[in-house]
Amino acid sequence: MMFDVPKILDIIKTRNAKTVGFQFPEGLKRQGPALAKEVEEKSGALVIVSGDPCYGACDIDEGLLGIVDVLFHFGHSRMMDDERIVFMEYYHDVDVERAVINALPLLGRKVGVTTTVQHIHKLDEIARTLKNADREPIIANGDSRVVYPGQVLGCNFSAVPEGVDSILFVGTGNFHPVGMRLARKLPVVAADPFTGEARLVDVEKMMRQRYAVMAKAMDAKKWGIIVGMKPGQRRMELAKRIKGLAGDAVLISIREITPDRLQSFKVDAFVSTACPRIAIDDAGMFPAPVLTPIEFEMLKGKRKWEDMAFDEIKGD
Amino acid sequence: MMFDVPKILDIIKTRNAKTVGFQFPEGLKRQGPALAKEVEEKSGALVIVSGDPCYGACDIDEGLLGIVDVLFHFGHSRMMDDERIVFMEYYHDVDVERAVINALPLLGRKVGVTTTVQHIHKLDEIARTLKNADREPIIANGDSRVVYPGQVLGCNFSAVPEGVDSILFVGTGNFHPVGMRLARKLPVVAADPFTGEARLVDVEKMMRQRYAVMAKAMDAKKWGIIVGMKPGQRRMELAKRIKGLAGDAVLISIREITPDRLQSFKVDAFVSTACPRIAIDDAGMFPAPVLTPIEFEMLKGKRKWEDMAFDEIKGD
Repeated sequence: MMFDVPKILDIIKTRNAKTVGFQFPEGLKRQGPALAKEVEEKSGALVIVSGDPCYGACDIDEGLLGIVDVLFHFGHSRMMDDERIVFMEYYHDVDVERAVINALPLLGRKVGVTTTVQHIHKLDEIARTLKNADREPIIANGDSRVVYPGQVLGCNFSAVPEGVDSILFVGTGNFHPVGMRLARKLPVVAADPFTGEARLVDVEKMMRQRYAVMAKAMDAKKWGIIVGMKPGQRRMELAKRIKGLAGDAVLISIREITPDRLQSFKVDAFVSTACPRIAIDDAGMFPAPVLTPIEFEMLKGKRKWEDMAFDEIKGD
Repeated sequence: MMFDVPKILDIIKTRNAKTVGFQFPEGLKRQGPALAKEVEEKSGALVIVSGDPCYGACDIDEGLLGIVDVLFHFGHSRMMDDERIVFMEYYHDVDVERAVINALPLLGRKVGVTTTVQHIHKLDEIARTLKNADREPIIANGDSRVVYPGQVLGCNFSAVPEGVDSILFVGTGNFHPVGMRLARKLPVVAADPFTGEARLVDVEKMMRQRYAVMAKAMDAKKWGIIVGMKPGQRRMELAKRIKGLAGDAVLISIREITPDRLQSFKVDAFVSTACPRIAIDDAGMFPAPVLTPIEFEMLKGKRKWEDMAFDEIKGD
């Protein structure tokens, strides 16, 4: 079974919940209706599935939360403490060993080990594989925004250990490893369990793109400072501080930051204080330059150009 | 001045508001930053402009509302009573007389007069023009969802009078007059003040499209019942009733109903209990048939096919 139905039923029963919300990340959403049907039949509760996009534990559907007795948020680990929200993690059974073995030639001796929540149950196995190859795996605790030692988010690399030669990231995609490479200035090896491949992460291309976006924003007079309205992305104090540095600037609150929503505003450039990923992943689609707060500080001379870093949302 | 700045400043001062939200419909949004700047300079309050889409008074940005002392919602008349929301209507100065004169040959003697809030201040002038042409204008009160006599919304035609020969709609677009034509089975004449043109409203094409959508949904086994999450569109009881009629059905909550959000769900057809306009205006773009609750009832034999009507959201 992919979802822990007995646990869901138990929580519904214990809380005597009559109306229940389900929220899935995009990759699990198609399974929503079948799970809703099964839980409705077995519990008698009414299930409402969120149809709005969901990209992380930061991205709680507050509208749905407001009309249900309990909201089950699938696929991500706990980020905020709200007893109405139950975070239901989702683990992949995919084998990690081959990818880790393929990473070995690229790693130093002292290896910081990181992964995302769907492979977090394989952390011991990853460490064992490294030890068997005469490496010293180091797994560190992150801040309050993450749950597990070794766990990273696209916006939080607090669990990357200090004092290592290199960092191993077990997972998919380029965003996490690139962020760690910039955050720690250490070699990062990305090992993808799904393909079995491992590679040394290169940040050159991404850096060039970011400097190009910053160059375009150089002469901006009017700024739009975006406040993300998703609960775990709402950095109001940061947005106010950036607005103060920007001069002619307007605060703009947005839930889903899309090109057409930015198009509605006649400003020369934007700074996004929402999910750090948005400015970077969607850069090519936006009608005007969208900077991270760190890039904006560099542009305004408040930060040295060699101190380029990834924007992170820190916990406590 | 297009916006009533003194009134805005007065409300901010009276309420001692420190943080203020602005929400604009799409057509006014580009003016947001300049108005925000002026109000910030004159009041000392911090202004946050909503960057999320806004299509009516039903469409309150609840996220923004939650972090400001007062939310100014521009361009629409009051729909809900919430002292934190100030509805700032927006009137067009465009002349209406020429369009009404052009409508005369198409109208009967007893004419129900309707318009939208941006021309509502011209209602007396419209009535006078009709009287001068020997017509009897009838202006009726609507239910609690509208504010002014003669005012219609895309989802509410309660201010269309009974006992008239024909209906005059002064305004733009096809949606309101088509809705009235279906709601009242009377000739509707649409007079557009911006072009000066008047025309008898034809519902044939739209009806054909709707029956085609219903035909496609005929064999649907799995249904997605959409609950709109915008405050004035949330019809939970209706959604539950439709779900009960649908058999194999899942409730899906959505804020912005877009083709890609529906694409995430593997169901055969949808029923939208949100804004009635969505099923109809965006029909061609959706990945599966999207019916209004009324169309769904027809399909399920709960309503006669000759009783086709527009879905309305009624007030008290």
